[in-house]
Amino acid sequence: MKEIVIGFLGCGNVGGGVWELLKNFAPEIAHRDQVTIRVKKVLVRDVNKARTCSVPKELLTTVPEDVLCDPEISMVVEFMGGEQPATEYMLTALKNRKTVVTANKVAVALNWHRLQEAAQKSKVGLYYEASVCGAIPIINVLMSSLQSNRIDKLMGIINGTTNYILSRMYDSGEDYKIVLQDAQKLGLAEPNPASDVEGMDAAYKLSIMASLAFHARVLYRNVFRQGITGITQMDITCGKEMGYVLKLLAIAKRQGNTIEVRVHPTFLPQDHPLSRVHGSFNAVYLHGHACQDMMLQGRGAGDMPTASAVVGDILHAATVAVHSHPTFANRAEPDASLTFTDNWSTRFFVRVSAKDTPGTLQKIAGWMAQENVSIATMLQKDAVEEGRVPLVFITHEASEKAMQAALSHMEKDVCTVESVIRVEA
Amino acid sequence: MKEIVIGFLGCGNVGGGVWELLKNFAPEIAHRDQVTIRVKKVLVRDVNKARTCSVPKELLTTVPEDVLCDPEISMVVEFMGGEQPATEYMLTALKNRKTVVTANKVAVALNWHRLQEAAQKSKVGLYYEASVCGAIPIINVLMSSLQSNRIDKLMGIINGTTNYILSRMYDSGEDYKIVLQDAQKLGLAEPNPASDVEGMDAAYKLSIMASLAFHARVLYRNVFRQGITGITQMDITCGKEMGYVLKLLAIAKRQGNTIEVRVHPTFLPQDHPLSRVHGSFNAVYLHGHACQDMMLQGRGAGDMPTASAVVGDILHAATVAVHSHPTFANRAEPDASLTFTDNWSTRFFVRVSAKDTPGTLQKIAGWMAQENVSIATMLQKDAVEEGRVPLVFITHEASEKAMQAALSHMEKDVCTVESVIRVEA
Repeated sequence: MKEIVIGFLGCGNVGGGVWELLKNFAPEIAHRDQVTIRVKKVLVRDVNKARTCSVPKELLTTVPEDVLCDPEISMVVEFMGGEQPATEYMLTALKNRKTVVTANKVAVALNWHRLQEAAQKSKVGLYYEASVCGAIPIINVLMSSLQSNRIDKLMGIINGTTNYILSRMYDSGEDYKIVLQDAQKLGLAEPNPASDVEGMDAAYKLSIMASLAFHARVLYRNVFRQGITGITQMDITCGKEMGYVLKLLAIAKRQGNTIEVRVHPTFLPQDHPLSRVHGSFNAVYLHGHACQDMMLQGRGAGDMPTASAVVGDILHAATVAVHSHPTFANRAEPDASLTFTDNWSTRFFVRVSAKDTPGTLQKIAGWMAQENVSIATMLQKDAVEEGRVPLVFITHEASEKAMQAALSHMEKDVCTVESVIRVEA
Repeated sequence: MKEIVIGFLGCGNVGGGVWELLKNFAPEIAHRDQVTIRVKKVLVRDVNKARTCSVPKELLTTVPEDVLCDPEISMVVEFMGGEQPATEYMLTALKNRKTVVTANKVAVALNWHRLQEAAQKSKVGLYYEASVCGAIPIINVLMSSLQSNRIDKLMGIINGTTNYILSRMYDSGEDYKIVLQDAQKLGLAEPNPASDVEGMDAAYKLSIMASLAFHARVLYRNVFRQGITGITQMDITCGKEMGYVLKLLAIAKRQGNTIEVRVHPTFLPQDHPLSRVHGSFNAVYLHGHACQDMMLQGRGAGDMPTASAVVGDILHAATVAVHSHPTFANRAEPDASLTFTDNWSTRFFVRVSAKDTPGTLQKIAGWMAQENVSIATMLQKDAVEEGRVPLVFITHEASEKAMQAALSHMEKDVCTVESVIRVEA
């Protein structure tokens, strides 16, 4: 029977969950995989802090080298979060020929090439299922089950906080600020919610998933990013009336060597599978040339869902012969043959406030037509305020630049553009 | 660079798809996994039959031993379908120390213990992702990603033919026979549709998934099975009016050592994630103690989706150090400590035709109350025919036996029971 000796970097709630799962499933794992897992050392900030988890106190240490340099430890599991010192610790572990399992999206998204290169050099593994979408096994599925697919499209609801906020705005008609405050009270949003509501969290995760889906390095800074802070109840209500649900979507598409990666508020038709993903759930929808359409849905955050993903990685890493090193992952920059476009084609939801005079609609339609943007549906609200009337359009597919040009003409002429929200199907 | 030499048993459309995928991804696989895959021999019935796939004719053979006994071949991929001769061929391959990858649900469901035992004895692998739900990576997810979960519930739409039929009956109001005939014309149902519409196909798949979910052998014959041939448009219409969608569900639940496994028509609330899985799509919803709720949705059949799953298995098998042998899988019988119950608790949809006389409803309610079955909602249609009125009830949760007892009293007294359909949430 092979014994794998592991060390933890950090021991919060996820670490405690991993400890419990490993303990509970030890007999099963030993029998099935002919391997036992022993946790030898756990790096913490304060040995004497009260902990809910049952890790014995004698395993705790405040000295990183106790984990990173112990020759008996062959696998290091990182739960610290944040870019540093987590990245440097992981690099040291990898250089010391220890396989690394991490739940850290920021460190992987920003330093993947350094981590992967170190892993490859030392012939050890780098595993990061828990860094993206909690329990949802999207990394395993992309790397293993779907590895013979050319994936051309991936769209995900990969941030639970914003999905909770938008779901509640849709259901209750409340305003953004009220719902955000409630989410903060419930612990579903951070006191400083920027990383979630500005889309950074989703952009980190998207850069990892898109890289794996396209077998090409997609950097965090390649991702176009727009958050949900400008979303009004008026937008959600108008979309709802027209049959659409608003989600913060992470979208990656590939056509030949052209890639688009973007995180922004997006209207989806009510009958789209992603429209039904409510509250704090996450989901990833994708299309591959062999598998066709697929969707994975589940708990994208939380201690035990994340621990479930971490233990899956630990056991996989413990039983694999050759650790897989994605060909693209040790590049610092995307392949030069790839183009990242910001002129994608999509449909648009446009809400304007226009002068309530004859000919206004004709002018708006004219400006759109001039830029080859064609209107699919229109909603005119009868509420006229101060001589202005709210108008909502949903266009057919148009290029981003054409739409922006049409909006610019319209603003100069007859209306104020209140909001522009992309629409996917 | 390691070379894996493989042989095919059978070469229909799925085999052709696997051939293409392996060819297309060879450079990527070689670079990433340090392995090349070479197909050496392909067993077919007729070497001269016209084929759409591009497998070179010189690889074809009609002699099973050319694949099963070639010492250079270390992996055999089976596409023949059906219990025999596929099982015997796979057993021979395993005895000859060849890892087996199969898409054959019948052979795995019925002879898993023989196949797994032979694999374990020879220290080779047995892989069967493609045997259940086409491209959906449910086997990989259960065995790898979720291996540290105690799964207590799994519910799936795992037969595309019946889901197509029920979706169309729901959408169009057409009768079962008409829709079945159309499905047959479209190639979505077999000329003899029994295996699909009687639930055998789903029961094979459920026995495999439930075994993996519960880490316990669940046999095909343990699965309670009821098909959709008795479903009427009246049932679907009444359910729809009450907010429910009808699906052929495969359900597995575990509480302690008590297991229930059943395939039957089931009403689901319209807002349940599985209710939105339309047409020929498959989906599996599950709940584990760590991962919590999860759903995987995708193409459950078709040549390329199935090939996608087969190639995932081939590459996994080619790179793993120790082939995993689930502890339960080499048992011929379920563990004696387990009980398979047929007295599960669920809600019921009951449609009766009752005498249109005062006191009828009171009597029905009385018989239900006597057996501790409580009515949650009721629908009375005003269409009286020959002095009889249709009544529809949905009950609160009740045991199967209590419900059957109540129905038996009602039938003897005041009504004819037209249909009883279980309801899950």
